[in-house]
Amino acid sequence: MRSIVAIGIGTGNPEHLTGEATAAMRSLDVVLVLDKGTETADMRDLRARMLATQCAGREPRTVLVEDTKRDPELAARDYEAAVEEWHGRRVAALSAVIREELPEGGTAGFLVWGDPSLYDSTLRMLERLRGVGAGDSPESGGGEFAVRSIAGITAPSALCAAFAIPANAIGQAIHITTGRNLPETDPGLLRNCFVMLDGGCAFRKVAEPDTEIYWGAYLGDPRQILIHGTVGEVGEEIAAARAAARAENGWIMDTYLLRAAQPASQT
Amino acid sequence: MRSIVAIGIGTGNPEHLTGEATAAMRSLDVVLVLDKGTETADMRDLRARMLATQCAGREPRTVLVEDTKRDPELAARDYEAAVEEWHGRRVAALSAVIREELPEGGTAGFLVWGDPSLYDSTLRMLERLRGVGAGDSPESGGGEFAVRSIAGITAPSALCAAFAIPANAIGQAIHITTGRNLPETDPGLLRNCFVMLDGGCAFRKVAEPDTEIYWGAYLGDPRQILIHGTVGEVGEEIAAARAAARAENGWIMDTYLLRAAQPASQT
Repeated sequence: MRSIVAIGIGTGNPEHLTGEATAAMRSLDVVLVLDKGTETADMRDLRARMLATQCAGREPRTVLVEDTKRDPELAARDYEAAVEEWHGRRVAALSAVIREELPEGGTAGFLVWGDPSLYDSTLRMLERLRGVGAGDSPESGGGEFAVRSIAGITAPSALCAAFAIPANAIGQAIHITTGRNLPETDPGLLRNCFVMLDGGCAFRKVAEPDTEIYWGAYLGDPRQILIHGTVGEVGEEIAAARAAARAENGWIMDTYLLRAAQPASQT
Repeated sequence: MRSIVAIGIGTGNPEHLTGEATAAMRSLDVVLVLDKGTETADMRDLRARMLATQCAGREPRTVLVEDTKRDPELAARDYEAAVEEWHGRRVAALSAVIREELPEGGTAGFLVWGDPSLYDSTLRMLERLRGVGAGDSPESGGGEFAVRSIAGITAPSALCAAFAIPANAIGQAIHITTGRNLPETDPGLLRNCFVMLDGGCAFRKVAEPDTEIYWGAYLGDPRQILIHGTVGEVGEEIAAARAAARAENGWIMDTYLLRAAQPASQT
């Protein structure tokens, strides 16, 4: 049996790695990298440095898997169907590569930014891979690949740590969503809402000017940027800082917390 | 200046500790333990073992701070006010202890289960401590204590890792709340909802029988228990397993994810 492990590596600070993650990195025969064409040389270097530091002298081989894209026409009509169809193609390509590159009994791994459970498609692919050779039922667990996931520091946790703030108001709920979903999110949920994958600073469209925003980019990295204030005061500053940093570095990973000045008493 | 650091230690597996957390543990002069009277000898031992392993030979001194309780009458009338009032008393007691026990320039730390940002009051106390000696303004940062937080593996992340599942349905939002809030939570949010601090298995009152539940206790610990199924199938099994494990160990830390069988297309 071949093993495949998704390893959460945190948000860019090599010190975010857990003992479990470093042990898993050292156990790998092969590191699989899905080449999405969006990852810059800089991001690849950061990951390669983590591997080199943790596996000094006996780094696993890196195998690039060429990634396909979502079908844009299908995505416009039905976003989830497009993602499903895309994942299907990825799984077919991946299982072929793993059979070719990984010996029986070997372990291959993905290094996943943040935590593999949070807005990342690796576990969804592995769920399907687990079923390969077992009647394609992801539940059977009896396929030819064993699958494991290792938790990492999430972007919301790293954001809160950077500001030394709690993620929740006392006793209250936390919502986590994407920039894409934000415009249709119930305004009540914006009282305490983390937003990820927001390339368009959607908070400017939905948040009241007196809503507090805690924004952070490159969390844990030496380039870390933190901005805090009300959306009215710092909203445009954040959008400008984001655009400038992205232009300078060629990529950006950022997240933010919206917190209403006067939270209601229950959620 | 004295430094105080909240260190996330994950959900019980010493391998959850990050490099940042272990470095911080080694830098401590004093470990502060708020004695809430609810922590069992078993939980204290687990923390002490982590310290001993990480700081072998030069463990920081542990200082117990006797904790006070929430005013039950005030809590019944106004839960948030009661928590606020209670935190005020804690901060006064803590700053006195820190001044007495920690030399100028020294570092004291709290070891916090999971991540300090998530349903834990340590950062809220430190926010206030930061203001002590600076006109009590938590924003000034110019007080006599410097404050830092170190992210840890959260219970929701550990739960997802244990099941090797994503935290979110494709492209959709995630809600995190408490057992206390669950009965008043918008049913739409139960489509993908993590629940923490639920001593009463509140899911039995609110979730549809065909809602999937992923429940985990003692996540990452050798005693870890995982149960997955629909609420109709495994709801009572979870309640019974929880009660039995709690009776056996004297304590339990658990969390669960509710996921509706048919998520709507947007949140």
